[in-house]
Amino acid sequence: MIHAVSPTFEEPLLLTPGPLTTARATREAMLRDFGSRDSLFMTLNRSVRERLLNLSGAAATHTCVPLQGSGTFAVEAMLGTLVPRTGGLVLVLVNGAYGRRMVEILDRIDRPYIVYETAETVPPTPKDVELLLMSKPDITHVAMVHCETTTGIINPIKDIAQIVYRHGRLLLLDSISAFGALDVRTTPFTALAASSGKCLEGVPGLAFVLCDRTALQGAAGQAHTLSLDLEAQWTAMERDGQWRFTPPTQVLVALSTALDLFYAAGGQPARLARYTENCRVLIEGMRGLGFVPLLSEALQAPTIVTFHMPTNPAFRFEDFYARMRGHGYVLYTGKLALAASFRVGCIGAIEPSDIAGMVATAASVLRQMGVT
Amino acid sequence: MIHAVSPTFEEPLLLTPGPLTTARATREAMLRDFGSRDSLFMTLNRSVRERLLNLSGAAATHTCVPLQGSGTFAVEAMLGTLVPRTGGLVLVLVNGAYGRRMVEILDRIDRPYIVYETAETVPPTPKDVELLLMSKPDITHVAMVHCETTTGIINPIKDIAQIVYRHGRLLLLDSISAFGALDVRTTPFTALAASSGKCLEGVPGLAFVLCDRTALQGAAGQAHTLSLDLEAQWTAMERDGQWRFTPPTQVLVALSTALDLFYAAGGQPARLARYTENCRVLIEGMRGLGFVPLLSEALQAPTIVTFHMPTNPAFRFEDFYARMRGHGYVLYTGKLALAASFRVGCIGAIEPSDIAGMVATAASVLRQMGVT
Repeated sequence: MIHAVSPTFEEPLLLTPGPLTTARATREAMLRDFGSRDSLFMTLNRSVRERLLNLSGAAATHTCVPLQGSGTFAVEAMLGTLVPRTGGLVLVLVNGAYGRRMVEILDRIDRPYIVYETAETVPPTPKDVELLLMSKPDITHVAMVHCETTTGIINPIKDIAQIVYRHGRLLLLDSISAFGALDVRTTPFTALAASSGKCLEGVPGLAFVLCDRTALQGAAGQAHTLSLDLEAQWTAMERDGQWRFTPPTQVLVALSTALDLFYAAGGQPARLARYTENCRVLIEGMRGLGFVPLLSEALQAPTIVTFHMPTNPAFRFEDFYARMRGHGYVLYTGKLALAASFRVGCIGAIEPSDIAGMVATAASVLRQMGVT
Repeated sequence: MIHAVSPTFEEPLLLTPGPLTTARATREAMLRDFGSRDSLFMTLNRSVRERLLNLSGAAATHTCVPLQGSGTFAVEAMLGTLVPRTGGLVLVLVNGAYGRRMVEILDRIDRPYIVYETAETVPPTPKDVELLLMSKPDITHVAMVHCETTTGIINPIKDIAQIVYRHGRLLLLDSISAFGALDVRTTPFTALAASSGKCLEGVPGLAFVLCDRTALQGAAGQAHTLSLDLEAQWTAMERDGQWRFTPPTQVLVALSTALDLFYAAGGQPARLARYTENCRVLIEGMRGLGFVPLLSEALQAPTIVTFHMPTNPAFRFEDFYARMRGHGYVLYTGKLALAASFRVGCIGAIEPSDIAGMVATAASVLRQMGVT
């Protein structure tokens, strides 16, 4: 059990999509100061980049370009750096807020796109993507979200990736909420954006793109921004090992420690197994209290679970949230376009026993609320 | 004395422009996890924004927009959000690498500009700026760097600001290396970019722009990027107190503690006094060892000092750097376009006694190197 003590109001358990509950050792790594050009930091920086890249299985062809900021910064950097200003056309697969965010970015940065949108509970099918690619030969890139935090749905990235490359197009992947827990080794991709603060269980403040080196080499000067130019960031870092602009040193060092813990615990398969068990205990326990998950088991990523809002008139979510918060459990509001819902995260330095503790607390809170 | 123990190779004193040596309490604030939508975090976020804004003296008209990333991200956000895509013309005052970086940003984001460049040891004069503003009525904004870390030169922002507004133009200020130590209360500005990890002595990973609210309101949709859109960042934060995209929670909480320490120690005047004394002890001590500062006293900001590279053939900077590093003192390389130099920072949680310790160590290192 990671948490020897129960959560409290002051030090709660974050059952959210991130920032997450992290391991104490990860936070303790931030107790030191590091010069960004000093060899101690540069060694850690190189090691973090290598380990993130190896995790993707694409080390022979790709590189890891870290970036200051949140996951969205990395997604914007990926789209702006890799999609040409003219001649590019992105097919964006949308079934939630993060797919729509890619559309919003492309709109803002003036890169042409078309959208294939499915309902929030429906993944895009490889067949439909193939038909679109055949009917629109000018599509150059397909952009999609690995796991949509909007619902917790897992999208079929591997099958779609195979279609994309069979038709000679390039896949750009937002794997922010999945990378580290879900395997991407058998999925070809041109670029994959992720961040420090999700399934890798670092603290937030740093993102990265795993990017095909040839694609990056062809993208010099293409980005719409200096700060989010992945090609320039990569070129500078390869030259002297330094970041172009001040890096978030403590956040990087925390990620390095989080990766130490990640590999010591068994790497991606072990992380997936723990989150899967967290998710199972959560759904089983919440079902026992009468909560109904939005998604079927086959579509559910083991990262965050959306529950329908109960219709029992004695249940008010604000009240439920506040009471759970008082006991040290931070839940998350829903984001569905159509239905009232709330969400509970399964990721972070959290064990099945922590989830069981949350379910037991929820049972007691519901009794206090008079919800039967 | 802030440092009860002497610096070591493992825990050195960072005499650099940042990341800096920070106070232990600032780093210890990062030992907790915070949900980004949780009231504990949102309260700290609001308090940090208010305190940064109050420090500028512009609270009646401006707002503080925090942003993920480094200071350069804030400078790019400021230029891209506030300079119109068409109809804008920026006069950029350049006397070092950070002025040139603003030019590089404007180039990349397609905003028209003209450059007034002086030598790295020469500040722009208010008179020349006035002549330029009179001769080019289509100039809409003047962009300048408060203290150029390239040399440590302090630019006359107050006198230039008065000229800029007398001629009905707007001033955009890069005060990254100065804000918190140098007073900006009597300098009018439309926007000022700064960051967590410089004179405020937080850890790096968060930047902010203090921005005129009217200017921001007129800038909806104007930014060239979604992630660095200050108007959208501000509007979202005013609506519900939350960041649009995952904030660097620990970095913000560390900045909050750094601001607690800042005000407890006497605020900006006290910080300026300490840095000024650090700078005086540094220059006096290094002069005593034969090092010659680049700048005259009148031009020297108390943040970082550039020294000419000694011509003594027994002095090799790489050797000097490595030996000082071995004793726990991290120095900084030079960045001058024309002359060989190195730099020593005066900012961070560093006392004059720490600087005196560094000078004493340098004396001993020089003897070991056979430099007389």
